[in-house]
This record gives sequence, C-alpha cells and structure tokens, in this order.
Amino acid sequence: MLRGRVEERDARLIAPWLDRRGVAIARVELVGDDVPALVAAVRRMLDEGLEIVCVTGGLGPTHDDLTMEAVAAATGRALRVDPDALAMVRAAGQAPGLDPEVAERVARKQASLPEGARPLPPAGTAPGCLLEHGGTLIAVLPGPPWELERMWGDAVAAEPLAGALARAPAPRERVLRLYRVPESRLVAALEALDAAARDALRLGVCARDAELEVTVRHEPGAETAADALEAVLAAAFGDAIYSRDGREVDRVVADALVAAGQTVAVAESCTGGLIGARLTELPGSSRYVVGGVVAYADAVKTALLGVDPEIIRRHGAVSAECAAAMAEGARARTGADWALSATGIAGPGGGTAVKPVGLVFLGRAGPGGTVVDEHRLRGDRAAVRERAAALALHLLRVGAAARG
Amino acid sequence: MLRGRVEERDARLIAPWLDRRGVAIARVELVGDDVPALVAAVRRMLDEGLEIVCVTGGLGPTHDDLTMEAVAAATGRALRVDPDALAMVRAAGQAPGLDPEVAERVARKQASLPEGARPLPPAGTAPGCLLEHGGTLIAVLPGPPWELERMWGDAVAAEPLAGALARAPAPRERVLRLYRVPESRLVAALEALDAAARDALRLGVCARDAELEVTVRHEPGAETAADALEAVLAAAFGDAIYSRDGREVDRVVADALVAAGQTVAVAESCTGGLIGARLTELPGSSRYVVGGVVAYADAVKTALLGVDPEIIRRHGAVSAECAAAMAEGARARTGADWALSATGIAGPGGGTAVKPVGLVFLGRAGPGGTVVDEHRLRGDRAAVRERAAALALHLLRVGAAARG
Repeated sequence: MLRGRVEERDARLIAPWLDRRGVAIARVELVGDDVPALVAAVRRMLDEGLEIVCVTGGLGPTHDDLTMEAVAAATGRALRVDPDALAMVRAAGQAPGLDPEVAERVARKQASLPEGARPLPPAGTAPGCLLEHGGTLIAVLPGPPWELERMWGDAVAAEPLAGALARAPAPRERVLRLYRVPESRLVAALEALDAAARDALRLGVCARDAELEVTVRHEPGAETAADALEAVLAAAFGDAIYSRDGREVDRVVADALVAAGQTVAVAESCTGGLIGARLTELPGSSRYVVGGVVAYADAVKTALLGVDPEIIRRHGAVSAECAAAMAEGARARTGADWALSATGIAGPGGGTAVKPVGLVFLGRAGPGGTVVDEHRLRGDRAAVRERAAALALHLLRVGAAARG
Repeated sequence: MLRGRVEERDARLIAPWLDRRGVAIARVELVGDDVPALVAAVRRMLDEGLEIVCVTGGLGPTHDDLTMEAVAAATGRALRVDPDALAMVRAAGQAPGLDPEVAERVARKQASLPEGARPLPPAGTAPGCLLEHGGTLIAVLPGPPWELERMWGDAVAAEPLAGALARAPAPRERVLRLYRVPESRLVAALEALDAAARDALRLGVCARDAELEVTVRHEPGAETAADALEAVLAAAFGDAIYSRDGREVDRVVADALVAAGQTVAVAESCTGGLIGARLTELPGSSRYVVGGVVAYADAVKTALLGVDPEIIRRHGAVSAECAAAMAEGARARTGADWALSATGIAGPGGGTAVKPVGLVFLGRAGPGGTVVDEHRLRGDRAAVRERAAALALHLLRVGAAARG
C-alpha cells in the first residue's frame, strides 16, 4: 500500500462501520510489511490507551505476512500454534497438489497466534483473532477486503468486541448533499447561523466531483440547531440540496427510476463504460438499466448508435450535436425511457485551443426531449472521466426528478 | 476519509513517487479534521526525527480546513497572513459573486501560513507551503488529488525539498507478475532459492485479482541473487510469469494490440461497462479500443449484439453459449479483431444452486475463434465485477500474446 500497488480498502470498510455505531475513529495508520514498523504502530496505539485497535492484513502464508508475530511482540506474548486455529486452517483447505511438508508448514504458520488470543474462523485460508491486552481490545483481521468483510461479521458478534460496541452511544447525524455549490458560498451561507446553533453542531464538509457533502452531527437534544442549519442552507441553496437523508446520487437516481418504472441506457465515448459501470453498481440495477453502447470509435457511434456521419464531419465527435445524437440513438435502439451520453477529451493528449482537454459534452435523451450540458473539467484523465460519469448521473437525476 | 466518504488518494500519489526515488516511507497516517488530532500526528512524526513529513488536505475555506493552524501549533509557530500567499490566492480567483467581505476573509484564511514557511502557488485556490523545523522538512499540500498532483511538481522542484530528494539513493527493483499462481505455491517455490540469495533480496508479495505481484529489491551488486530468484520462479511457473518489467496486464494488453495493429470491442452484461472503462483507462487507447455494447438486459443482448433469443431461452443469459454469442456479436458488429464478453451473477441476489453468485462466463472472440472461461469468483458484488474485468483482460492478453 505504501508503494501504491494496492488501494487501501480495509479501513474504508471498518472505519465507517464503527463510525456509524458511535465509535470515534482516532486514526488509521498504514505501515509496511516489516515487524519493527508493525510493532511500533501497535505499541503507539496501546500506549495511547485506545479501546479498540484493529489490525488488518499480513495473515497470509508468505514470509512478508508478519502481523501475528508483530502483535505478539507488541504485547510481549509468545507466538504459538493454536490447536483450534490449526483445525480451522485444515478445514478451510489449501491449494491442491501442494507438497505435504510445505502444506504443514504453511498451516502451522497461519495457525500461530499470540498467547491468549481467541481465534476467528478463516474467511479465506487464514484465521484472525481477538486479544485483550491491558484496557485495549486488539482485533487481528485479514487484508483482502472480501475476507475482511466476512470475518468482520464474526468478530463484532464475538465477545468481548460485541460488548464493547454495545457501550458506544450512536450519535445523531444528518447528511445533506449540495449539487454545484462552491465551498466558499457554503462558508458565506453558514454565517447566517447563530453562534449557539453552530456550537451545538459538528459540521464536516467534503467536496467531491460536483457536490458538497455536509455532515451534521450533534448530541441528542440539539435537533433544533440542526433544523436551523437545514433552514439556513435551504434558504441559500434551495433545490441544489438534492439529498437530505444521506442517499448518494446513485441511489437517488435508482429510487426515482424504480418509482417511475423507467429505464436508462448509455452511449459512452470518453467515459468508455464508466457510466454504465456506475449505474449497475447497485444491487437490483437490472430493474432500470438496460445497457447501451460504448461508442469509443466514430465508426461505432455511427454503426451502433445511428449517429449521422455528417454530424461528426461537421461538428466533430466532441460536440453538443454528437452528444445529442448519441443519447437519442441509444434511447431509440434500446427502447429505454432515458439515455445518457458522454463525449469529450479526457486527455492527456488530443486537446486543441478550441477543444481543450477536459471539454466534455453530456447528453440526456428522455420523454421530454434532449438536453446537452457542456463541461470544462479539471484534473487528469482519470479525474475527467470520473467527473463526467458523476455529472451524467446528476443530469439523469435532474431529469428523472422533474418527471417524478 | 475516516468515515469512508472519500477514498484515500493523496498518499497513493505521493508515497509511490517517493518510493521509486529511494525514499523509505515510514508510514501513512489518516486523521480527522480536528486540530488536536492533526497536531498529535505531526508531533509524532517530528519527534521520531523523520526527514520529510508531507501533510495533505484541509487547505480549503471552510471551518474544518485546519491544517495550517495545526502545523503552526505542532511547530510552535505563529499563524500569520503571508503577503506572497495572499497575492497568490487573489491571482487564483474566487467563486464569482461572492460577498466581498466574505471573499476577503476566505482569502486571508487561505493565505495564513506558519511563520517561516515558504508558500507554494495554488493549484486550485489554496497555496501550500514548505517549512523547515529542526531536522524535518514539512510539506503542506492540498487534498484534492489533481491539485496535489499539480502542486507536487512545484514542491519537489523547490528547495529545500529538491536537495533532500537528490540525496536519496535509488534502489534496484524488479517486479514480476504471475497469473493464477496460488500464494502457497510461491512459498513452496521460494524454498529452492539458496539462503545467501534470499538474504540479499527484499521480497514483497501482493495478491490481487488473479495475480501475484512479486517485488524484488536489492542493493547495487546483488543482481546475481535477483537473477537466481527469477530463474527459480521461471523454472516453477514458466509462462504464468506474464510480466518481468513491471508492466501491468492493462499495459501488456495495450502494447500487444498496438504492436499487432489490432483492435478490441466489449460485450458486457454483469460488468456493466467496467471492461470498457478499464480498457480505455490508458491514454492513447483509441488506437485499439473501438467500444462495444453494455448488454445488461436480455433484449439488448439480442437487439445490439444479435444473440439468438433461443440461446438465452435454452441456456440462460448466464451461460457459456451466451458469452460466446455476445463476444462473436460484438466482434461482428464493430469489426474489431477481438471482442471480450462477460455474463454472470454479481450478486448479492439472483443466485441459484446451479448458478450461484460469483458464477461468471468470460468470452473472447478473435482471429483464431472463440474461447469461453467459466469462473466462480468469491467476494461481494463489487469484487466479483472487478475480478471479472481483470480476468477478461487476462483472457485477451493470453489470446493476443499467442497471436504475437
């Protein structure tokens, strides 16, 4: 992770889960696969007297899987083969055809836990464990996110973790999402809130793609302060507040389409499939996504979407006219109620003075006609593509909401 | 980030950059937007005598953008408006129509730096800074990845950071990628390496999707040990080592297609566009990606890919027969040399005893005919979809390599 080869996903899974249940997250540390670094990290957290320390990753069979050794060292315990853990490893099975001697060594390594630890059954091949040390509860869990997710369910149901979690008071929280509101305007709007209300609230603001996510937390009893904040923002931004219940744009769009019994198709050039991938991320998306066309080459825009080659010749593939024709073509050829299109210059090459990198046209064809938005997006290739996909979802959201 | 609302991207950008230039990464800490947590994190790093500390995020205009204040507190310096920084903020411009009084306050906030810091020009609206404190060089940088990326270029070119980086010795490194080799088999194979060679090497193993990434680092002079390791792995795994120069599967596929002057199309059901999105991630992908069809609904499989409805009726949409027909349809309708298809059950619902969640058929149609692989993928919906996309890329890699 430190070397950028893998994305951090474990904390992204555990921390929000704990956060929602009222457990304050002190911090996340990412350290390398070496024992001194791991030991130092665990010791830092033990020394601070944190109540729960979750350690993920490094439970595999290779020489650089050192977590159990490090946790044993950090807590001054022996590392020994736990008979229950060994039985769990054997039951989980190993790679077929492995030399029996190697298989035995691998099994014993993966079943070695710090003395006094309670093993957690493997989700893949390696057991995890829970360990009480001083006032701290240490959970040692696997790194691969799907293994972690599965074991996490067992871990939080097992004592003493279950009891510790039950003692955390769940905070009151509201999440508001604002579409296309600059952060500095939000600052200006918040001036209208009186000091008492502001003191009662803990605000978090996160700017991403075209939206601001405002998280409002408070103790039970300070609901009126949170109401006052909502009123201030509603007065300043009105319909730009598109979600007041935490639902993200993906879910808002999905709910609107399901409620209206409508479907959506895509016609993607510069996004290459990202809009389709995002629309189908939610379970149950087959109820409202029919599919569509990735029209990267102009020939595909013509052949599969029926875009008139004359439009491309006259206006270029990156044009409002082409975006409109793509969306209309996808709608006509799939029979969907809505179609979204994207054509633009994601970069880093291909930009001109007239059509610079970041220029993206997004189209929406629907029951009420066709709309095209022109955007000049900042950022690198990946940022331009992801933003274009996010903005396309908003374009559909606005259309579907107007119908609903 | 601690609450899972945004992905960690800053360390993913900076840490590998530094790592490649021989700077050892001690660790990454993710902390919340509150001054005590930020101050404690910076102090921990100062107290350890780390040479470089990079702090990202929290330079915006809102009340929870507290990084400059925290760095000032951690270093015992005053926070004051830096005239150069103020000029930079004004030159960068602010949201139009903002109340002048608010605009001035926002500008002064964003131009407030710890005393003695050298400002770095804004990539968005906020300046960063470089600050020497004791033996540590602190770089304060923006959080949005594209802003960070842009300012990073300025930061590493500016003294004293440029000089500090020039002193780091670049390590020797090789990266090998193995396709479909279980980690435990790798452990077994490494036993054949003699102890002297093993001592001279620092190995890192990372398992992801269907591959193992083996990173081999050593001091100058230990090339023979690294050669011995490569020979051991080549003897054990042969063609399963698909990359010896660090290129990822995406790049290997791209290079093979460009070299052969060939193109690829997609026909995606359960992946919903992910394969297309991944194929078009690399700049210049328009040379070899033509596009294709997101065939989520069966009607789209029939209408846009020409899949015989009888195939779906008899075998189901999730079947080897349908995967083959989808790939062949995409190849025929786009005129691409290759086409990749994916149809499966990503879950969480929709699984049956015969066709469980995780069952995915991947098809490849090409100059030499059509191949379909059946996979039973573990993990949640996102994991199944991402793995299917990764495996589809490998399916193309194997086909394109056999032709090349």
